[in-house]
Amino acid sequence: MINKLIENITNTNAPIVVGLDPMLKYIPEHIKAAAYEEFGETLEGAAEAIWQFNKGIVDAVYDLIPAVKPQIAMYEQFGLPGLAAFKKTVDYCKEKDLVVIGDIKRGDIGSTSEAYAVGHLGKVTVGSQSYSGFDEDFVTVNPYLGSDGVNPFINICREEKKGIFVLVKTSNPSSGEFQDRKLADADNRPLYEIVGEKVAQWGYDCMGGDYSYVGAVVGATYPEQGKRLRELMPRAYILVPGYGAQGGRGSDLKHFFNSDGLGAIVNSSRGIIAAYMNDRYCKYGDKNFADASRAAVIDMRKDINENAL
Amino acid sequence: MINKLIENITNTNAPIVVGLDPMLKYIPEHIKAAAYEEFGETLEGAAEAIWQFNKGIVDAVYDLIPAVKPQIAMYEQFGLPGLAAFKKTVDYCKEKDLVVIGDIKRGDIGSTSEAYAVGHLGKVTVGSQSYSGFDEDFVTVNPYLGSDGVNPFINICREEKKGIFVLVKTSNPSSGEFQDRKLADADNRPLYEIVGEKVAQWGYDCMGGDYSYVGAVVGATYPEQGKRLRELMPRAYILVPGYGAQGGRGSDLKHFFNSDGLGAIVNSSRGIIAAYMNDRYCKYGDKNFADASRAAVIDMRKDINENAL
Repeated sequence: MINKLIENITNTNAPIVVGLDPMLKYIPEHIKAAAYEEFGETLEGAAEAIWQFNKGIVDAVYDLIPAVKPQIAMYEQFGLPGLAAFKKTVDYCKEKDLVVIGDIKRGDIGSTSEAYAVGHLGKVTVGSQSYSGFDEDFVTVNPYLGSDGVNPFINICREEKKGIFVLVKTSNPSSGEFQDRKLADADNRPLYEIVGEKVAQWGYDCMGGDYSYVGAVVGATYPEQGKRLRELMPRAYILVPGYGAQGGRGSDLKHFFNSDGLGAIVNSSRGIIAAYMNDRYCKYGDKNFADASRAAVIDMRKDINENAL
Repeated sequence: MINKLIENITNTNAPIVVGLDPMLKYIPEHIKAAAYEEFGETLEGAAEAIWQFNKGIVDAVYDLIPAVKPQIAMYEQFGLPGLAAFKKTVDYCKEKDLVVIGDIKRGDIGSTSEAYAVGHLGKVTVGSQSYSGFDEDFVTVNPYLGSDGVNPFINICREEKKGIFVLVKTSNPSSGEFQDRKLADADNRPLYEIVGEKVAQWGYDCMGGDYSYVGAVVGATYPEQGKRLRELMPRAYILVPGYGAQGGRGSDLKHFFNSDGLGAIVNSSRGIIAAYMNDRYCKYGDKNFADASRAAVIDMRKDINENAL
């Protein structure tokens, strides 16, 4: 799947991923009204609004982008109907030949991590049958529990030809609280470097072609750290959140890429899906929210191609 | 909810929590056969088997225990039908007046962590209505992203009078890979101590009565670390996994408790729910799996009361 991701990136000339994180406040009133008309102001109504919103955006941008990253929390908050909308979104994006990165940030130990991996990347066995639960192509994984938590994901990736992105240095202001702590038993280097080295190690045996299907998450908001991590994990694809609304710009991203122009994929969520609410694109109006998203994708592609690559 | 947890513990004289982690291989054949008969060898069939298994165990032990801890991964692997069984289990246990600890190990940033908190502990707003998604009483939270990831959970806990347990030192063999790293900027103390201190800080303003509703997860398999963390987080309730099948014994747990006999709640999953598969309880037979679970709870209570308290 890492090869397919790279192929999609090369074909679109766009190392970008659209974060499908549909908060209700981003969804135009006419979509919510139609959904509530049909299902009431219920969890099912919210889930329908989310699905219609996602579908509108995906239909408008799928030919421009290699991948999407639905953030499962935004669906999980609406309980079972929300998760049904997540599944519907994953399936629809795969029909459109997009690579789907499930932003699930799961991580547990042994058989429990394996259950997450099975549910999101693999197949579960029921009697003589087997089924995919959510069937994303990649998922994000939290490393706090160490190799016991990550290896079960890697094993399923190997079987299913899928991939993971392990959290290394996250984009948020307090990410340094633990991730930046300097380790006495590693020449005073920060924890995120040691996690990055682990990602590189986990990934050595997991190569697609030039890149590993064990990737990393490194925030656009930390360009210096990104540069260092790029060196420490030369074959890991880096999923880069924090562009746009969180403050990261194209010029911050230079060092996240390798000299082959590959090695990183930059996420934007709000900046794309809620573009119509931004001064720059508000001329489209909320009825044409999806056209605003398309314009925002084109601008983002340009910014990254001109300033980051 | 921390007060209710303590009340339940005091009333049952059992600082124990039963982990409802129903892998299919633990479920007796007659339950699976009945479920597959009705729903086929499908995700729905698996979910029905899980639900019937859980119900059998809960009915057999609810009067002996204060709380249950369903591990959501074990349900999530069966996709949407699995998660419906999770929800049904949560609701049923609450009807039985058990405190429900959702073992979800979520953690993200800002509005995303808030969405998880809303979905699992709080209420989500849809138009003029509001709904609970999964409605557990406590959840487990991963701290790797720092305060940005944890505070949204705490805010919802404050509103809803619920609680969290933050991963500090997990029970698995590789938990030391990152958690035990010695920090040069903290007198060479290990990372888990610094996370523990943060838990104590987060919890100071979040007191029920004597204890905070911001608790911690510390594995039974690390008794020395548990002793130190008990000192560093005097008012945090400690959720202790790793007892039984993972190797922890009652005598390892002495220092997880405070001198008031409170402050810790010990989880057993396999050791209780799959007791009938264990030599010690196999005399009950698989038809009477729930009686075996009851016997295992009684033995565990005895072990902890005699050796840990």
